[in-house]
Amino acid sequence: MPTDRSAPLSGIKVIDLGRVLAAPFATSVLASLGARVIKVERPGVGDDARQFGPFQGKTSLYFASVNCDKESIALDLAAPADRATFEGLLEIADVVVENFSPGVMDRLGYGWESVRQRWPRLVYAAVSGFGQTGPLSSKPSYDIIAQALSGMMSLTGHPGQPPVRVGASIGDLVAGLYLALGVVSAIHKRTRTGTGDFVDVAMLDSQVAFLEVAVTKFTATGIDPAPQGTRHPSIAPFQAFQCGDRWMVIAAGNDDIFRRLCGAIAQPQLAVDPRFHDNACRHTHLDELEAEITAALAPHDVGHWVTRLGEAGVPCAPIQTVGEMTRMDQIAARAMVVPIDDPSLGAAKVPGNPIKMASVDARTSRSAPPQLDEHRARLLAELAARVTASQY
Amino acid sequence: MPTDRSAPLSGIKVIDLGRVLAAPFATSVLASLGARVIKVERPGVGDDARQFGPFQGKTSLYFASVNCDKESIALDLAAPADRATFEGLLEIADVVVENFSPGVMDRLGYGWESVRQRWPRLVYAAVSGFGQTGPLSSKPSYDIIAQALSGMMSLTGHPGQPPVRVGASIGDLVAGLYLALGVVSAIHKRTRTGTGDFVDVAMLDSQVAFLEVAVTKFTATGIDPAPQGTRHPSIAPFQAFQCGDRWMVIAAGNDDIFRRLCGAIAQPQLAVDPRFHDNACRHTHLDELEAEITAALAPHDVGHWVTRLGEAGVPCAPIQTVGEMTRMDQIAARAMVVPIDDPSLGAAKVPGNPIKMASVDARTSRSAPPQLDEHRARLLAELAARVTASQY
Repeated sequence: MPTDRSAPLSGIKVIDLGRVLAAPFATSVLASLGARVIKVERPGVGDDARQFGPFQGKTSLYFASVNCDKESIALDLAAPADRATFEGLLEIADVVVENFSPGVMDRLGYGWESVRQRWPRLVYAAVSGFGQTGPLSSKPSYDIIAQALSGMMSLTGHPGQPPVRVGASIGDLVAGLYLALGVVSAIHKRTRTGTGDFVDVAMLDSQVAFLEVAVTKFTATGIDPAPQGTRHPSIAPFQAFQCGDRWMVIAAGNDDIFRRLCGAIAQPQLAVDPRFHDNACRHTHLDELEAEITAALAPHDVGHWVTRLGEAGVPCAPIQTVGEMTRMDQIAARAMVVPIDDPSLGAAKVPGNPIKMASVDARTSRSAPPQLDEHRARLLAELAARVTASQY
Repeated sequence: MPTDRSAPLSGIKVIDLGRVLAAPFATSVLASLGARVIKVERPGVGDDARQFGPFQGKTSLYFASVNCDKESIALDLAAPADRATFEGLLEIADVVVENFSPGVMDRLGYGWESVRQRWPRLVYAAVSGFGQTGPLSSKPSYDIIAQALSGMMSLTGHPGQPPVRVGASIGDLVAGLYLALGVVSAIHKRTRTGTGDFVDVAMLDSQVAFLEVAVTKFTATGIDPAPQGTRHPSIAPFQAFQCGDRWMVIAAGNDDIFRRLCGAIAQPQLAVDPRFHDNACRHTHLDELEAEITAALAPHDVGHWVTRLGEAGVPCAPIQTVGEMTRMDQIAARAMVVPIDDPSLGAAKVPGNPIKMASVDARTSRSAPPQLDEHRARLLAELAARVTASQY
């Protein structure tokens, strides 16, 4: 029997009410996995992200970066005719995704409790700043609010220096990825039960789930973890070092690697120094160790050290710009920076799908982000054909 | 009909060969969704993370933070008797997860091509630094390598200052979360096709997928995005500000919020200043705007401003420590910092599951992380019973 090479979510239809980032990112991930995603946008304006620069022609590159592979229809959910269309879409959908403030969908008459009565198989997925429950539920939030309240920013940056926001919007992106996982898990459960579910993900909760050992460490010791610059909280040396020309990172994940590192930088005495003989000692004496390694690296440029340390089996890398990353052969081999099928977007590319599967060919481009309301006629015809068919 | 309140992955069995973080985090997420996770560890030593401090008694809190809700058996995959046991586990498993360097499982005779012949329904999920393909495939990697090569570190920190590592290991965690999503997607596809799949996720790829608009912006303009401190790349003002006592963040996501902000800090003239009249202008003149807002905030402490701005509907928050986060009523209401069912771990808690579902009660604790080989006898008995049963 030939392998079924369809994408894993092939056949799944997603109605996407999302704006800006968390929900649109979630549905972008679902689209990468083969789902059909239909954006329902406000007439006239559309998704707020359509206004965010930079622009290529009239198209927001911000919008393009998370809305490839989607269709668009503009609907006013307060207008009766558009409500009928929206309900037609819910009729054919497997999933509806939204990131309004909790309560907005209820006021429109499309809260989970109403929707489940009419469409019991629907998976209803909501991502919000604080979630659908709890005292802060109705508060507005944005990426940096989740990064700040969760403690994520308290872990990031240099001690005693001004705070640092993680340079990508991980407040939204992590929540969006958890939402996508919740959606697929609920779809899996539906194959067992026949009924849909309500998936409720909060940006704050998602950041907390990403604090790693910091929560466990604080609750056990009562000591708040501090920012570490580039240092790892538990492993040493595992951080950035300045070479002759620029910065690199070195990750000595265990004692063997540390010994190889000492050899490669021609400082074999460090490997037998009692201050550095195991990870715990190195962590305690890290200021001294950092000074020794920095002095040893100073005479040569990063290219020299990446080669030398690589030969010695020491994990290391230059701290690259985004541009340097896009030029890596490895990124090309993995189709991780791919063009958009839209000549009007010029050279603009978007990230590929990091979930590679043996049964699915990796896509080497993505479809153009939709113009506002671009797919109205086709979607209305599709709904009309379905109604006509069901009358006979 | 009563609702089926089982967790979505109830009945799914996962064999976890993972060490340290990326794969163990993925299986921790799968366990939160109801999967049964069986860790297969090296005899004597176990998962390397068991050696990472801090410790509570003899238990690594680092290990505890990503290994609750799992079973453990110690197996030497080079020894015939243990190989038979491992194959018995594969016989009952739905999923196997590993984060060895590519090639290690092949050398053990358990690469995907061999395993799929004997167990065609198995979903085989591998997370590695660079993925199973491409010129860097066999290179070792660690969190900070993925953060450095992807460009993530180039976006994080203050311009002209030393680099900053994101304070949580997002190189591992994002890859682990994508792997979990790939696993559940492959399980969903299996209900359609009857066959398993190979899921291949790279830490580098996963970081690239999280660069958001940075890839699109660079490829369109050829200009490498620089670190922004706490500033958002597209929205202004959306960043940290120093108040009288400490730092807070303010997120003026649109023009309305900006006008309300100006009123709340008693600087209404800023709202009508042509330098600041829309997001694009504010972005261009951000240094001046930042100075104005900082001067206005200086006379009062963060508590004053969070109240005042909150009343005006301006999203804002103090930059909290991890400890402050754990004391939030919202975190308690959402069960996002939960105890471990193990008195020997004292006060240590772990993050809860951020995927809340209407059909599943949120867990308010997690099971103790397993001792090395703790579940050997039970697992062997389970496999023996299965063999005996199949003889009749």
